[in-house]
Amino acid sequence: MADDGKLGRLSFEWARAHMPVFVLAEKYIQRKELGKRFFKNTYAAMCLHVSRETAVLVDSLHSLGMEINLVAANPLSTQDNIASFLRERGVEVSAKGSESSEEYYASIEVAAKSSPEFIVDDGGELHVAYSRLSLKSCKGGTDETTSGTLRLRAMDSERKLSYPVIPVNEAETKHIFDNKYGSGQSALDGLLRATGLLIAGKCVVISGYGWVGRGVAERTRGLGARVIVTEVDGVKALEAHMDGYEVLPMDEASIRGDVFLTCTGQLEVLRREHFERMKDGAILGNMGHFDREIDVVTLKKMGRRVEQVRKNVTKIEIDTEKSLYLLCDGRVVNLVAAGGHPPEVMQLSFANQLLSIYYLLEHEKELRRERPKLLQFPKELDALVTNFALEGFQLKIDRLSQRQKNYTKSY
Amino acid sequence: MADDGKLGRLSFEWARAHMPVFVLAEKYIQRKELGKRFFKNTYAAMCLHVSRETAVLVDSLHSLGMEINLVAANPLSTQDNIASFLRERGVEVSAKGSESSEEYYASIEVAAKSSPEFIVDDGGELHVAYSRLSLKSCKGGTDETTSGTLRLRAMDSERKLSYPVIPVNEAETKHIFDNKYGSGQSALDGLLRATGLLIAGKCVVISGYGWVGRGVAERTRGLGARVIVTEVDGVKALEAHMDGYEVLPMDEASIRGDVFLTCTGQLEVLRREHFERMKDGAILGNMGHFDREIDVVTLKKMGRRVEQVRKNVTKIEIDTEKSLYLLCDGRVVNLVAAGGHPPEVMQLSFANQLLSIYYLLEHEKELRRERPKLLQFPKELDALVTNFALEGFQLKIDRLSQRQKNYTKSY
Amino acid sequence: MADDGKLGRLSFEWARAHMPVFVLAEKYIQRKELGKRFFKNTYAAMCLHVSRETAVLVDSLHSLGMEINLVAANPLSTQDNIASFLRERGVEVSAKGSESSEEYYASIEVAAKSSPEFIVDDGGELHVAYSRLSLKSCKGGTDETTSGTLRLRAMDSERKLSYPVIPVNEAETKHIFDNKYGSGQSALDGLLRATGLLIAGKCVVISGYGWVGRGVAERTRGLGARVIVTEVDGVKALEAHMDGYEVLPMDEASIRGDVFLTCTGQLEVLRREHFERMKDGAILGNMGHFDREIDVVTLKKMGRRVEQVRKNVTKIEIDTEKSLYLLCDGRVVNLVAAGGHPPEVMQLSFANQLLSIYYLLEHEKELRRERPKLLQFPKELDALVTNFALEGFQLKIDRLSQRQKNYTKSY
Amino acid sequence: MADDGKLGRLSFEWARAHMPVFVLAEKYIQRKELGKRFFKNTYAAMCLHVSRETAVLVDSLHSLGMEINLVAANPLSTQDNIASFLRERGVEVSAKGSESSEEYYASIEVAAKSSPEFIVDDGGELHVAYSRLSLKSCKGGTDETTSGTLRLRAMDSERKLSYPVIPVNEAETKHIFDNKYGSGQSALDGLLRATGLLIAGKCVVISGYGWVGRGVAERTRGLGARVIVTEVDGVKALEAHMDGYEVLPMDEASIRGDVFLTCTGQLEVLRREHFERMKDGAILGNMGHFDREIDVVTLKKMGRRVEQVRKNVTKIEIDTEKSLYLLCDGRVVNLVAAGGHPPEVMQLSFANQLLSIYYLLEHEKELRRERPKLLQFPKELDALVTNFALEGFQLKIDRLSQRQKNYTKSY
Repeated sequence: MADDGKLGRLSFEWARAHMPVFVLAEKYIQRKELGKRFFKNTYAAMCLHVSRETAVLVDSLHSLGMEINLVAANPLSTQDNIASFLRERGVEVSAKGSESSEEYYASIEVAAKSSPEFIVDDGGELHVAYSRLSLKSCKGGTDETTSGTLRLRAMDSERKLSYPVIPVNEAETKHIFDNKYGSGQSALDGLLRATGLLIAGKCVVISGYGWVGRGVAERTRGLGARVIVTEVDGVKALEAHMDGYEVLPMDEASIRGDVFLTCTGQLEVLRREHFERMKDGAILGNMGHFDREIDVVTLKKMGRRVEQVRKNVTKIEIDTEKSLYLLCDGRVVNLVAAGGHPPEVMQLSFANQLLSIYYLLEHEKELRRERPKLLQFPKELDALVTNFALEGFQLKIDRLSQRQKNYTKSY
Repeated sequence: MADDGKLGRLSFEWARAHMPVFVLAEKYIQRKELGKRFFKNTYAAMCLHVSRETAVLVDSLHSLGMEINLVAANPLSTQDNIASFLRERGVEVSAKGSESSEEYYASIEVAAKSSPEFIVDDGGELHVAYSRLSLKSCKGGTDETTSGTLRLRAMDSERKLSYPVIPVNEAETKHIFDNKYGSGQSALDGLLRATGLLIAGKCVVISGYGWVGRGVAERTRGLGARVIVTEVDGVKALEAHMDGYEVLPMDEASIRGDVFLTCTGQLEVLRREHFERMKDGAILGNMGHFDREIDVVTLKKMGRRVEQVRKNVTKIEIDTEKSLYLLCDGRVVNLVAAGGHPPEVMQLSFANQLLSIYYLLEHEKELRRERPKLLQFPKELDALVTNFALEGFQLKIDRLSQRQKNYTKSY
Repeated sequence: MADDGKLGRLSFEWARAHMPVFVLAEKYIQRKELGKRFFKNTYAAMCLHVSRETAVLVDSLHSLGMEINLVAANPLSTQDNIASFLRERGVEVSAKGSESSEEYYASIEVAAKSSPEFIVDDGGELHVAYSRLSLKSCKGGTDETTSGTLRLRAMDSERKLSYPVIPVNEAETKHIFDNKYGSGQSALDGLLRATGLLIAGKCVVISGYGWVGRGVAERTRGLGARVIVTEVDGVKALEAHMDGYEVLPMDEASIRGDVFLTCTGQLEVLRREHFERMKDGAILGNMGHFDREIDVVTLKKMGRRVEQVRKNVTKIEIDTEKSLYLLCDGRVVNLVAAGGHPPEVMQLSFANQLLSIYYLLEHEKELRRERPKLLQFPKELDALVTNFALEGFQLKIDRLSQRQKNYTKSY
Repeated sequence: MADDGKLGRLSFEWARAHMPVFVLAEKYIQRKELGKRFFKNTYAAMCLHVSRETAVLVDSLHSLGMEINLVAANPLSTQDNIASFLRERGVEVSAKGSESSEEYYASIEVAAKSSPEFIVDDGGELHVAYSRLSLKSCKGGTDETTSGTLRLRAMDSERKLSYPVIPVNEAETKHIFDNKYGSGQSALDGLLRATGLLIAGKCVVISGYGWVGRGVAERTRGLGARVIVTEVDGVKALEAHMDGYEVLPMDEASIRGDVFLTCTGQLEVLRREHFERMKDGAILGNMGHFDREIDVVTLKKMGRRVEQVRKNVTKIEIDTEKSLYLLCDGRVVNLVAAGGHPPEVMQLSFANQLLSIYYLLEHEKELRRERPKLLQFPKELDALVTNFALEGFQLKIDRLSQRQKNYTKSY
């Protein structure tokens, strides 16, 4: 193949060719704005995984006139050829393939201080960083994830937000699709690339039966594994049970698992007491946004020898009888070991992102009149994206007749 | 085996032996009320499917002192030996195995007019009947189903309710469990008993991808069929697509299906235009509460000969080349052709019912102070039933540590 | 519905309408024999499950001129209305709904002694009975099952066969289809009808991972259960493991199962040591041809009380803490509690049966020249039935081009 | 990470750590031969995919004294760091990452001419090449694949074999396991790595429902795709139908597929008439040993532009409206785009290989007395490997009691 820039371009083109839903959203704006460069003279700081799909969103906004500073949403998830490609297109990208924690936070800090008018975030890091400064530049923001929404909700309840934020994660076509179907596949993709091992016949322990956990559980079973689910929520535990998974507390599951995947959004879901029970050869990976679900620090301290034995696999030799294998240093497996969600999934998220940013600008005046807060995701955008999605996936559905609509309201 | 009364008792005992979650709820009340017959001097009219599980609920309330008049929630779903058994226990049961529509509505009318203090309903029929009268007797009610909740919501919005109603369907351990897992299995059970045909290899068209449709789709695929889903809701259609089902409008699906199952809560989902397209031998069944999802009247008119060829199977001979088979006369397949939901599912619904009725009585005074309305399902009951369910299904789950609880609130 | 004879006829018609593959085989013979009653002046003793599908085979042979004495292949599997229907058509049927073992064996004895020219068997019982007599009447036979084939092979190796036998079970379109897909569904159908319980979430132990066990395991999982497989064959155990099932010896599985289904063809697969380990409430069923897979005698002796609590369910109360439930008295669950294999499956078996009997008559002279033995299933019949099956199921497949045929032979 | 040699070593160690079954086979030989270097003074030419698992086999034989010349079994499947590692260990490796067809055949030619005593082959290429020479050196051989076995059978029927060959593919623990479970997973792994696209919701056409096709179909469905199967064999088509897949001739399937995967062992399964029908964006991959299943030459000729757009993805632009994407240039997807079968699967194949080579040497004298031919796979090796496999996968199974053994023989 070829040099970095060309690889980045090809990767971008491949993604865009598989994101018809996003393209429909883009066309919608262009049509509505009569082809004007609607985002001209706006400036956004963005904290996103620097992937091919992100390039499609960023390039689109950039083409529509927006000035952008892009930083990474994870120290290990940046694809360098995508960064090169975006720089060639004139976007400022402050991210590189493998950053130290210091470099990572420094970039976020710089972006926060750059007086952005818009903040587009993944995980809330940039919103938090900006809120610590006393800037007045920002007119609106979005966030991509469950984790980010939780943090923004906490900030909002303490009145720490100085601008309205749209929680894109709450779009109807967003969280179920990327969390369940996107993570479901990409977690397995990451596991396969990192280990190259057979899934069939393995006992895989999945912590958390939210949308990510469900997706991962279903695909893991689809590849022939036996799945054990651990939960802290009773109703979800009952659902997992009825879905045919074994439900156990981690104390018992930790003895039986060949592979462990955390999907909780919590911290220290796997910790010393579990490491001690695990079998020789057990593999530990995390699918949560943050790298705190596995207590990596303690795990490494428990090893008499810690060694990288494959790309994205660290062997922790506990003693002569037992070694554990940690994937991606406890960081999110699908983004670090594989390419993250596929473009068909990300197009839904990013169509919602694109339209949310457009919405913030379009409704700037009204929004300024209200208290700055975490907004409800606008229903009108849900309807729009759903229609683009049906068209993009070439699905035809039925329509209610007037008679049926009336029936719904009768009693 | 033996006579009707004994069969009913054995059936009741079998169900109760498989309803430990219900028994835990019952014990909870007994313990709290120090073994008193808490429901003494109360009178309830109940409109429920007269099944073995219903007998467990009714018998329990009766044993705790409640006087009860039980009528059927569907003209075809009553199990006579259960009715006999309950009568032997002293419960008034105005229902029999196969009623005409007139008999069915007459019983409901009588029950409504009997000045009940509580109304326990399945589908809202009894609430609607009562609301047409100008009685003041009723202090509180519950309803079991999605259909009932929709009707009650419509009544509430028109201020037609004269007493508070708890929508049991909205309990956390209710609608997902009985709609998805209960219907999922019992729809197939009904289909198998009614037809005795092979599911594997068949093309089964499922209308509606709500909880019932999902459950039915999953189990139908689990028995080896290819499933086509039809929907009117875009997001649900996308989910069905990603779950690996083919999504088509009914115009196209009607050409391809070997079996059709409606799970929509709508009317005339299958109608003339679809009957005309269907293959010779196609089988039509309904899983919705009401018998209006298939336009049975038109279908029968289209037949040059209409004949019952098996229990619960009517053959509609369209012409020499084509016959269609209608199950259970368009009434809900799982209750008419099979025994409805299994006791392990119904115990969740009925533990919620029992505790809801208890709640209405316990909070009678407070509730009387407020405008009578459709209530939110009480969170405290959700917590109770979830715990009973974990105990009843013998599931152990993890608990959040204090450190983890704090983390949830941080940002 | 209606009287016995009419019910039988409707049931027969329903089955025949869903057996197009069989009808194609019948037409093939009629066409080849120019519509003559080819089987005129022949007499067969048949030992088959007296089901609606069997009626289709028997009625077809009878219509083609054969005289038939039909006895049951299992004391509990006869459907009385089918027996009535066949008698009305002029077939001699010596079987009734629920026979004692004595009656059952007496009927077989009588049939064996009736000097049949052909023996059509299911399980080998009739062949064995006939071989004990010193009759010379029989010109040929067939058998339907794995169990029968094993017995016939043993008889053949001891030169006990006095006529050629075609092992229909070894037809290419037979054993995989009825054992895997037929048993897979009908075992679950039997379990559902006998117990009415929820499958989802249950732990189901399946003994034996042959074709029956595979089918049952797949459908059981398809209904949401967790499946444990026990095996005595290492390669099959490895396959079960890779197919995502837990593989355990029965000593361990017996502790964990909620339901047990034996699919082995062996005896005493479940015995005292396992009964002792089982949980309170465990359900025991057998899917093997003979009722020896569960040691029923010992089990009943272990009970301080043995009581029938539902149709096809016997409760064995071991002590105050523990009861076990035995299905169908240890006899084959799908035939006793449900209707056996669906007609779409049986049509394959019975198309093979019909053509095998035709083959025996057509090749009578050649066969008489050879030593009487268990034959190979004729390849030409495999080809015929496969083509009828593709047509009957309306499947279109590709054909090899000449170029591709040549390629297969090249190196 | 590190330099090539180190990467190779780590990769080898990772594989060996996940091949306990192979290690048990190795230990068995060592124990039997009292630790002697049993293969001393022997020389083998081997034509295998140069992967980490192959390194485990080759290194083991080399450590036991065998001299080896290893060439690639596919021009694109060699992993260079593995080749480096083996060379460092003293093995002669004539293969590199991406070879031209000329280089590839030249290496095989050289290996064939090197007067090997043993030929270990994958696909029969080396056996064919050797047979064209008039050498007498070879004492025995093995082959790994279905394709190879077919070619060897053809050679044998023409008496072209001058030495005995063991078809390792026919070991009981071989072809089902690597073809079904190995290919099932690695095909998807290859597809994911090559395209990075979402599988869920896609329509995937799988040609061939042999063991490879079955495995691929099951895993593809497990990842959420709808699967269409094409077949030339009627019985397999019926099985696919009953397994819940849609069965169509390629003429119809070619219109509907988003992805095509050939698993047939045939040539030109996808050809001009199908390319013409395919949708814009369709993806074409091959899972057969040879690169002839897709008619790549014609496909490329049909393109007005042919361009590599990703690693292992070639875009064939047919016209402005339609482009097709070819994976791995029509070569076997799992080996070229991913790492081939996982070590847990390859350990079964290579335990059989190791023991087969041992068997050839051990039985050299007896074998020389017979006509050189394609042998039956030795039953004793099946038993050995099955036991090692149970131990390696830590599976415990039941044993037949004497009573049960007797029962099997009774009638």
